[in-house]
Amino acid sequence: MFRLLLKQRMSTKASPFKAKVTAVESLTQGKWIQTRKIKYNDPNGNSREWEMAVRTTRSDTTNIDAVSIVSILHHTDKPKEIVLVQQFRPPTERVVIELPAGLIDPNESVETTAVRELQEETGYHGEFRKQSPVIYSDPGLTNANMVLAYVDIDLQNPKNCDPKPKLEESEFITTFSLPLNNLRKSLDEIAQRENCTVDARLYHFAMGLELAKTQL
Amino acid sequence: MFRLLLKQRMSTKASPFKAKVTAVESLTQGKWIQTRKIKYNDPNGNSREWEMAVRTTRSDTTNIDAVSIVSILHHTDKPKEIVLVQQFRPPTERVVIELPAGLIDPNESVETTAVRELQEETGYHGEFRKQSPVIYSDPGLTNANMVLAYVDIDLQNPKNCDPKPKLEESEFITTFSLPLNNLRKSLDEIAQRENCTVDARLYHFAMGLELAKTQL
Repeated sequence: MFRLLLKQRMSTKASPFKAKVTAVESLTQGKWIQTRKIKYNDPNGNSREWEMAVRTTRSDTTNIDAVSIVSILHHTDKPKEIVLVQQFRPPTERVVIELPAGLIDPNESVETTAVRELQEETGYHGEFRKQSPVIYSDPGLTNANMVLAYVDIDLQNPKNCDPKPKLEESEFITTFSLPLNNLRKSLDEIAQRENCTVDARLYHFAMGLELAKTQL
Repeated sequence: MFRLLLKQRMSTKASPFKAKVTAVESLTQGKWIQTRKIKYNDPNGNSREWEMAVRTTRSDTTNIDAVSIVSILHHTDKPKEIVLVQQFRPPTERVVIELPAGLIDPNESVETTAVRELQEETGYHGEFRKQSPVIYSDPGLTNANMVLAYVDIDLQNPKNCDPKPKLEESEFITTFSLPLNNLRKSLDEIAQRENCTVDARLYHFAMGLELAKTQL
């Protein structure tokens, strides 16, 4: 029988904490990120304007930017854990704890992206189970959208015995897992101890888990 | 004794569903949203570049853009509900269901913003209880950050008997509430029925609530 000896941190490369921002410069129109002016009619029919940021990488076929992945590890000898990643995010100038995630490639389905990104970022071979509708990460600021996927990881699968991420040369992603129970407190503690920060979507997920215990 | 007869929708103005985008134009540098090129050293010390969107409105004193608010209604005659808002968001070209939220004014504290925005958007007078650390809404795309606040609403308080939002002339926000139990399913149903969409942070919160029931 195969058992996963999960290492607390499965990084294969240099620590993301060694990265740092050296300069921030003005940019008119980026290759990856641009701004747009929107003209719209308000509910009373009055013409108004709004500004937004857009990703230039969105595929016309899906009209979705990204997929994030919830994967729970069902251990036989300890409580359930959720798979997380940690990487330096230049916009924040910090290392950020997030759900595994990635942009959808052209002509790729949500299902394929979810399984591919989980494997590339964390090394785990998963089975796609279900997905959310298209949701918007910060709808006052940007049209950036995503789908939240739920992917099962079978720890009895030999492929998951010693998960090895397949990172691109420019990616420095550390995979780890935390118990689902008390996830919010664990995130707070790690963020404080390591001087890193947490993705808002992951934090809201953890708040939901916590609130369910006292309010449901 | 005061009792809140909660209307399903407490909008005071025209329906957000009447709004629509009429044009989307290129924009070099916006008044509210701009792009930046970041130079950074990766963990191996190699110089790399990244692009990001920034809000121009962030106060230097807090270094925080926004506050979102979790408020639970403790009814005496029906299950607990969470306070939500619905508004047309030009970047998404859709009406979006979100937690009440707002940008922090210059020199304003998180606590003050949370109570002020809850009252302005929903009409409820709340008491600030606690807040998250600073978290990032879409850290690969933008430095936009926020704090998640937890605000108590005392439904016995006479001020909360007939909550009246104080919306700006350009705001068309509808307040409503949904049972905490099965929140994710309710959001899915409303989004489908009304052809609107859901903020990713709220959706992750609802996923956490749901997963707690089966996985914790």
